[in-house]
Amino acid sequence: MGSDYKIPYKIYLEESEMPTHWYNVRADMKNKPAPLLNPGTLQPMTAQELGGVFCDELVKQEMDDDTRLIEIPEEIRNFYRMYRPAPLVRAYCLEKALGTPAKIYYKFEGNNTSGSHKLNSAIAQAYYAKKQGLKGVTTETGAGQWGTALSMACAYLDLDCKVYMVKVSYEQKPFRREVMRTYGAEVTPSPSDTTEVGRKILAEHPGTTGSLGCAISEAVEVAVTNEGYRYVLGSVLNQVLLHQSIIGVETKLAMDKYGIRPDIIIGCAGGGSNLGGLISPFMGEKLRGEADYRIIAVEPASCPSFTRGVFAYDFCDTGMICPLAKMYTLGSGFIPSPNHAGGLRFHGMSAILSQLYHDGYMEARAVEQTEVFRAAEQFARVEGVLPAPESSHAIKAAIDEALKCKETGEEKTILFGLTGTGYFDMVAYEQFHNGTMTDYIPTDEDLQVGFDGIPKFPGNLQ
Amino acid sequence: MGSDYKIPYKIYLEESEMPTHWYNVRADMKNKPAPLLNPGTLQPMTAQELGGVFCDELVKQEMDDDTRLIEIPEEIRNFYRMYRPAPLVRAYCLEKALGTPAKIYYKFEGNNTSGSHKLNSAIAQAYYAKKQGLKGVTTETGAGQWGTALSMACAYLDLDCKVYMVKVSYEQKPFRREVMRTYGAEVTPSPSDTTEVGRKILAEHPGTTGSLGCAISEAVEVAVTNEGYRYVLGSVLNQVLLHQSIIGVETKLAMDKYGIRPDIIIGCAGGGSNLGGLISPFMGEKLRGEADYRIIAVEPASCPSFTRGVFAYDFCDTGMICPLAKMYTLGSGFIPSPNHAGGLRFHGMSAILSQLYHDGYMEARAVEQTEVFRAAEQFARVEGVLPAPESSHAIKAAIDEALKCKETGEEKTILFGLTGTGYFDMVAYEQFHNGTMTDYIPTDEDLQVGFDGIPKFPGNLQ
Repeated sequence: MGSDYKIPYKIYLEESEMPTHWYNVRADMKNKPAPLLNPGTLQPMTAQELGGVFCDELVKQEMDDDTRLIEIPEEIRNFYRMYRPAPLVRAYCLEKALGTPAKIYYKFEGNNTSGSHKLNSAIAQAYYAKKQGLKGVTTETGAGQWGTALSMACAYLDLDCKVYMVKVSYEQKPFRREVMRTYGAEVTPSPSDTTEVGRKILAEHPGTTGSLGCAISEAVEVAVTNEGYRYVLGSVLNQVLLHQSIIGVETKLAMDKYGIRPDIIIGCAGGGSNLGGLISPFMGEKLRGEADYRIIAVEPASCPSFTRGVFAYDFCDTGMICPLAKMYTLGSGFIPSPNHAGGLRFHGMSAILSQLYHDGYMEARAVEQTEVFRAAEQFARVEGVLPAPESSHAIKAAIDEALKCKETGEEKTILFGLTGTGYFDMVAYEQFHNGTMTDYIPTDEDLQVGFDGIPKFPGNLQ
Repeated sequence: MGSDYKIPYKIYLEESEMPTHWYNVRADMKNKPAPLLNPGTLQPMTAQELGGVFCDELVKQEMDDDTRLIEIPEEIRNFYRMYRPAPLVRAYCLEKALGTPAKIYYKFEGNNTSGSHKLNSAIAQAYYAKKQGLKGVTTETGAGQWGTALSMACAYLDLDCKVYMVKVSYEQKPFRREVMRTYGAEVTPSPSDTTEVGRKILAEHPGTTGSLGCAISEAVEVAVTNEGYRYVLGSVLNQVLLHQSIIGVETKLAMDKYGIRPDIIIGCAGGGSNLGGLISPFMGEKLRGEADYRIIAVEPASCPSFTRGVFAYDFCDTGMICPLAKMYTLGSGFIPSPNHAGGLRFHGMSAILSQLYHDGYMEARAVEQTEVFRAAEQFARVEGVLPAPESSHAIKAAIDEALKCKETGEEKTILFGLTGTGYFDMVAYEQFHNGTMTDYIPTDEDLQVGFDGIPKFPGNLQ
């Protein structure tokens, strides 16, 4: 790069330009995401029923399919100012290394201690819990990013925080627990004997390494059986995508400021929070017919909800005590192979993204983990950021698209979400370096175990 | 904070405002730092002699006491653009938590994968090595920040990188090695049997946990005995303080932009690179009589070079094969207690800072590690950044000064350097949480071991 570049390496909005509203993409959807169902009655959950699990204000946000712009409370905006606006980075060095005519941008959400975008929703959920006068919140965490984010938000607001951490991550990431403890959280490996559902799962699957669905069951049980507690969730829910829309709104503001328009938008997809947040305002334009973007969800081949799941009502948790969501799912009984190193281990997918995918507004592809780590290392060496394995799914797809441009000579503009950093994922990087990392693609029989768990009732089309 | 604040939470310079020159504070010093001495002849090292160890351009910078502004090569500025400008943060949340009228700012250097300011000099040293057509570089690393930074710079420039890592850190920070490997570096715990000096130290002190001085000896030996290699060092040297002046120059630009003038400037001090870099342009004004600032170096009580060392010529390494520097030193034979968790383990101190301290231009204080971690945790919870133990020495002193302001009611402006993040220091945080962390203040007898190693020759005043 000479000194004559027009677009800076990093585009930072001024704090005064920071968004004041979240973007609710549901307002632009003709086919709204299906409502959550009560697991007992199989009828749509009422606000009152949801209020037993979630804070009242979050219930409102969960059910609001119509308000496009929802104001971000001043206190949350002040918290955002501690680590936002996040930079939109032009990947000049990666472009050069690939020799591609494509222009690559990434929105980097890793510059905060939780190491990921999860903090955007953690502070919002903790804020509404505090405002409602609650004592504390419970949650699950997989790779640990969400738990860390929630711990930070709770420390800031002086709320109690109980985290159920998927056992395999708890063991692979010993230091994540210490970060959460630094922020005063109580961390329990899941499944555990501290809950009824945990004891049941342990009895049925004594050797289990845990799953997000199972940890969710435990956290929900603790929330509903303890006075003054509510459950909070780091992904999947409509409210979470709403909070995460700060990513997309900032990105769009920054791009508009420099007259940049992405042709392709790429995000990794586990429960869908980052991808949903990143694409929200862009998808809004697409749904209103004002612009067109190719939007690609990238998921692990070992947990392929979009590409090999079914679109059906399913439980969000293994214990089947949570509401049902209509989503692309591998079945709530599906537990990814323990050899899978990154996050993105959820059996289902955001109802919003599921509906959009079903309606043809976005694509999905599955990638294997060794190629993901190869892309991660290549990216780290030239861009100077050590990416989280989750984020690296998006890197892999972005590199593939950029290499296609190299073949065709097209100067496409590629935007992807770099959700976080991999400082706590070095066990996985070590496996990759030592050649002990393997790929795993579930067989159709493996998937059947999960699909068997999908409830057969009239609400499901299959 | 209301929405009417005048100073943003984070002041980012535009990339177009980024400094084009490093600031060489030696140009403003009446008493220049004493020259390095040849360990054989005890005469000042010539450029030719230094050229056997360091790259030619770096030798020039090491010996240049007169040029105030030295241009940053375009290629290095492009690399800086990947992670700079670094934010100058107004610690509104910490101020509020302390209830102090003081205004607290910190320059945050942790937003890059090396996790610290070390990258600022790593890329410069790697760049000049590459320019000279070398094959690779060797170095030592203590806490691992410097080794990581150098690995990143070498990966970017396609240079070979051999790192000798202090054994106690190698064992306490298993994942640091993986980050360096991700960037293609070869990492060896020191002392090792791969060098003559390492074998000698192991024979004399079989149970040693290593020290920076010892790792330096090994890295230098490898550099001078291998064709096409040079040694690079992450702190102490004049050239390193020069590169790190980017911290201070950016900080001063950002402060000037908003009309802020610090009363007190605080930095942690191990070898002195971060503190020296942060204060350079401010110290320049002070030396020229244009402004006055209180400048405070903060060091660990377990390795108290400034506060309990002597100002004398000493070896920079344990093996006594490196040039001698005139500095505050505990003696090159001094090895900090293994219970010391953070970095800042070097027995000596930058010759520039030593001279400035000797001449009364700055203060120094020593702090104990449990109080440092208490400050770190307090800071993490309100400011949302998990600080490195090293950086937390400065946090501790900044909090103390802010609390003094609370007592006196003075609205002082306090600036400190937050050099990096603590993601790889969770073993130490765990000790702190579990109550197993202890403090250690060396007795006078402990120190005598080191002082015994200080060469007795006419160049030394004692």
